[in-house]
Amino acid sequence: MEGGCAVVALIGRLAIIGVGLIGGSLARALKRARACEHVIGCARNQEGLKKAMALGVIDEFAMDVGSATEGADMVVVATPLGTTEAILKSMAGHLHADALVTDVGSAKATVAAAARKSLDRHLALFVPGHPVAGTEKSGVEASFAELFEGHRVILTPLLETDPKAVQRVQKMWEKTGAEVIMMDVERHDKLLAATSHLPHTLAYSLVDCLAQMDERADIFRFAAGGFADFTRIASSSPSMWHDICLANRDNLLEVIEQFSHRLEELKDALREADSNALMEMLTRAKAARDVYAANCNSQRAPGKTGPAVGPKS
Amino acid sequence: MEGGCAVVALIGRLAIIGVGLIGGSLARALKRARACEHVIGCARNQEGLKKAMALGVIDEFAMDVGSATEGADMVVVATPLGTTEAILKSMAGHLHADALVTDVGSAKATVAAAARKSLDRHLALFVPGHPVAGTEKSGVEASFAELFEGHRVILTPLLETDPKAVQRVQKMWEKTGAEVIMMDVERHDKLLAATSHLPHTLAYSLVDCLAQMDERADIFRFAAGGFADFTRIASSSPSMWHDICLANRDNLLEVIEQFSHRLEELKDALREADSNALMEMLTRAKAARDVYAANCNSQRAPGKTGPAVGPKS
Repeated sequence: MEGGCAVVALIGRLAIIGVGLIGGSLARALKRARACEHVIGCARNQEGLKKAMALGVIDEFAMDVGSATEGADMVVVATPLGTTEAILKSMAGHLHADALVTDVGSAKATVAAAARKSLDRHLALFVPGHPVAGTEKSGVEASFAELFEGHRVILTPLLETDPKAVQRVQKMWEKTGAEVIMMDVERHDKLLAATSHLPHTLAYSLVDCLAQMDERADIFRFAAGGFADFTRIASSSPSMWHDICLANRDNLLEVIEQFSHRLEELKDALREADSNALMEMLTRAKAARDVYAANCNSQRAPGKTGPAVGPKS
Repeated sequence: MEGGCAVVALIGRLAIIGVGLIGGSLARALKRARACEHVIGCARNQEGLKKAMALGVIDEFAMDVGSATEGADMVVVATPLGTTEAILKSMAGHLHADALVTDVGSAKATVAAAARKSLDRHLALFVPGHPVAGTEKSGVEASFAELFEGHRVILTPLLETDPKAVQRVQKMWEKTGAEVIMMDVERHDKLLAATSHLPHTLAYSLVDCLAQMDERADIFRFAAGGFADFTRIASSSPSMWHDICLANRDNLLEVIEQFSHRLEELKDALREADSNALMEMLTRAKAARDVYAANCNSQRAPGKTGPAVGPKS
């Protein structure tokens, strides 16, 4: 109640399947914005759900997807990608006719395929989504209401998706302080392979490589400040990244190939002590990184809409 | 003057050759600790020196190494590695008999060779050093007195180095709040190739790779939060890293080779959709990264001496 008028929340009953960093943060953000009335959490791990209750992130929990989604207005699937198909199948018979369904997976082609296979007549109300936000931490205890503020959420509606469903999911995300963007599935998966899945792959590979070296004790002991930043993403959830890597493996393999080619060029420059080639490459990379950083900063300033194009040489 | 007693500073006249992030921060830290009386800066770029004067980082400047080092008690070479030999040669005839000389280069074998070639009878008073601290920024305007606090400075004395010279350089670094560690040149260069030079190489290669892609505008636009951390080091000074890569190229090539091998394994796991192999690798890497992070945190707690050994599987 505000000013004597009853305020109707955007979402009456919100079901969050997978109450971890993303699912938990979404519930917190929507509660903070008074955009939902009741949150029901669902997960395989009861301990996590009890923790989520204790933290006030959810109001109720169910151990099976069917009962969690029964009567929900909005269902958000926030589990590792490999579980999406089974979860969509489990809810299909329980959803009420107007219930919206969305997800938060970092790769969208397998999600689209899973939805087409599992949601049947409900497919039009499924809106694939991806909040491009997160930390290296996992679990509801790492969730916080501000996670999505100033970040982008990419929605990748299918041909079958009802535009009104897209609008309502967009509205939900906007309540968290995120900027919502539309993109097709293929473009999303290609872009994310480059900007997110490749960096994660490199960070995991680097840490694994160093951890196998004989000098590993001293290596981790004498690592400089930059190392912590560079490898932070390798502390992300292995099961989540296992699923992302496999879900988007064709795109990921392609960008790894391109990266390897670039690294090979750098190796050649080193082997031949080719000072010019090396200097050119480092200068080019720094210029691109500086443009990116400047755009990140200007995005935070009010009134800006988006960054300029990165350099190409 | 404190309490009516004249306090004699550790260093009377300090000459900093290269007043950038590291040289400038060292001058600031020593001034803050009242560990030096007078700082003379030297660089090729007069603008930077004037800025350093205006910022109070140095008290005086000279445009040539000879006059800058004349009469100095302590000379710190803080320029890109490729300039070390020429700089040591320029000061050799000007140093007074007791003047200590040290440097801050991130690779030590070429520095040791340069010192042996250039310093002649003064070699015993040269202490190769490497503060394992920094940011991706460059220039005196990025310098700050706290840069070395809680960080390690590695000294790599040569067989020819006078132990008393080592002690005095150690004392200087301790005044900045750093922990000083001794290591031989070969071990230093091997470790730093793994912990610092390899990550920088990967970050530069990644950014350069993405900046060449057709979708580069959107790639940099839709990069997630982790991307900024992961690529931050690619904004470091290209000329500095050009010199480091070339100075330590044998060790660097070796660790790049090991990394490529690891990445190849991951590619194989992806190609074959080998779920177990992928999961094992990600889990192993996360475990190693978490041990590293826990040790970093425990080092910050008082009374701790160093981190435990990272896992090996």
